[in-house]
Amino acid sequence: VTAADSLTLHSRPPRTTASREAGAEGRPRGRPRGGVLNASKITAASFTLIAQSGYQGLTMAALARTLNVAKSALYNHVASKQDILRLLEEHLISQVDVSAFGTAQWDDAIQRWALSYRNVFAKHTPLIPLIAVLPVAGAPKTLAMYEKVSTGLLEAGFAEDHIVSVIVALEAFIFGSAFDVNAPDGIFNPGRLAAAAPRFTSVVAHLNDSNCNELPADTAFGLGLKAFVRGLRQLRTELV
Amino acid sequence: VTAADSLTLHSRPPRTTASREAGAEGRPRGRPRGGVLNASKITAASFTLIAQSGYQGLTMAALARTLNVAKSALYNHVASKQDILRLLEEHLISQVDVSAFGTAQWDDAIQRWALSYRNVFAKHTPLIPLIAVLPVAGAPKTLAMYEKVSTGLLEAGFAEDHIVSVIVALEAFIFGSAFDVNAPDGIFNPGRLAAAAPRFTSVVAHLNDSNCNELPADTAFGLGLKAFVRGLRQLRTELV
Repeated sequence: VTAADSLTLHSRPPRTTASREAGAEGRPRGRPRGGVLNASKITAASFTLIAQSGYQGLTMAALARTLNVAKSALYNHVASKQDILRLLEEHLISQVDVSAFGTAQWDDAIQRWALSYRNVFAKHTPLIPLIAVLPVAGAPKTLAMYEKVSTGLLEAGFAEDHIVSVIVALEAFIFGSAFDVNAPDGIFNPGRLAAAAPRFTSVVAHLNDSNCNELPADTAFGLGLKAFVRGLRQLRTELV
Repeated sequence: VTAADSLTLHSRPPRTTASREAGAEGRPRGRPRGGVLNASKITAASFTLIAQSGYQGLTMAALARTLNVAKSALYNHVASKQDILRLLEEHLISQVDVSAFGTAQWDDAIQRWALSYRNVFAKHTPLIPLIAVLPVAGAPKTLAMYEKVSTGLLEAGFAEDHIVSVIVALEAFIFGSAFDVNAPDGIFNPGRLAAAAPRFTSVVAHLNDSNCNELPADTAFGLGLKAFVRGLRQLRTELV
């Protein structure tokens, strides 16, 4: 049993410990094979389904089939696709490194958090449009991350009024940058249209020449993050 | 006939003017009803399909049905879903305002471009994961936008080596911010978990108090963009 099992999955009152443990002691009639259903299993099966057939393939019916349980059993744990999405969000956010907040300088902490956050979501870009607009209610790990970042920014001297905006803006950059990690080689090669865009063609050639040991997406992310944090350092004292 | 008809849609040699005009003069056998198929019609029908049933609903078969043409006729114009996606990209990018480049200061121009770009894509967020990684080859309007932005950054004194990275980083922020425009009210309301995240709960309450006349997404975008451009202004002289 992992920490994911303790998530608040839906608004019904939680089952009692006794009924939770019934499966282990002696299974009630109709209890499906394959062990007791829990949040970790639902999470793992959801990622499997998404890998196979995209987010569209993640339906309650397909999930029940993959888990070899009745749909009604699944509904005891997740009442909607939004509940499933929250499980996936929590699983991903729990992999984001917030350890630098409280130990490193705030700007270093932001940069380490942002890089880790981007790397986690770069592997799951189809979920970004959904997770980016998912309410935090019922997502304790996601809230724990925001608590860490808020505390770091408060201690760095940002005014309370602006901290949510700073976080939202940084996340926008992080999510957008996650897509770039998956960009194909030569995405900016203008091909037969080069003559119509001579300056752009030239700067693309310069990028290719100067970037022998780093992925273009990493160069852009590093530069953007550096600029962003520099600007925040300036604005921090002005925004009061 | 709109400018979209002149797009390079696929790698086959373009049809001759004579065969292009055949539909108007006297239709070859098998020419479908509803007028000659062109890029504008394919673009419009694609957006209709996406609005009805999401990007997954945009298939060559569904598109042919919507346009009331044979699939073979459609394949004369678009050879793949990537070709269709390029039409949609070109249609959207042509709505982005680049008019400030060359007339306003570079930092004002960047901010006007970025706001306009975000607003266009905020209405089409499901396409972002796809368009963000779409090669520019064969997309003249998209290239024309990059040419304007590159020229603006070159004239502002950014080194050629860094211009693509600056553009990629700004676009990441723009695309990520487009999602926020669609965030539901109260997305950061921690609900019953407030006690576990007291600082975050407090800064969320401050945001709600201070934001009476502006959408939170606009506040965050404005702050982030300001920080980003400030930082770029500093880095511009260091990055050589």
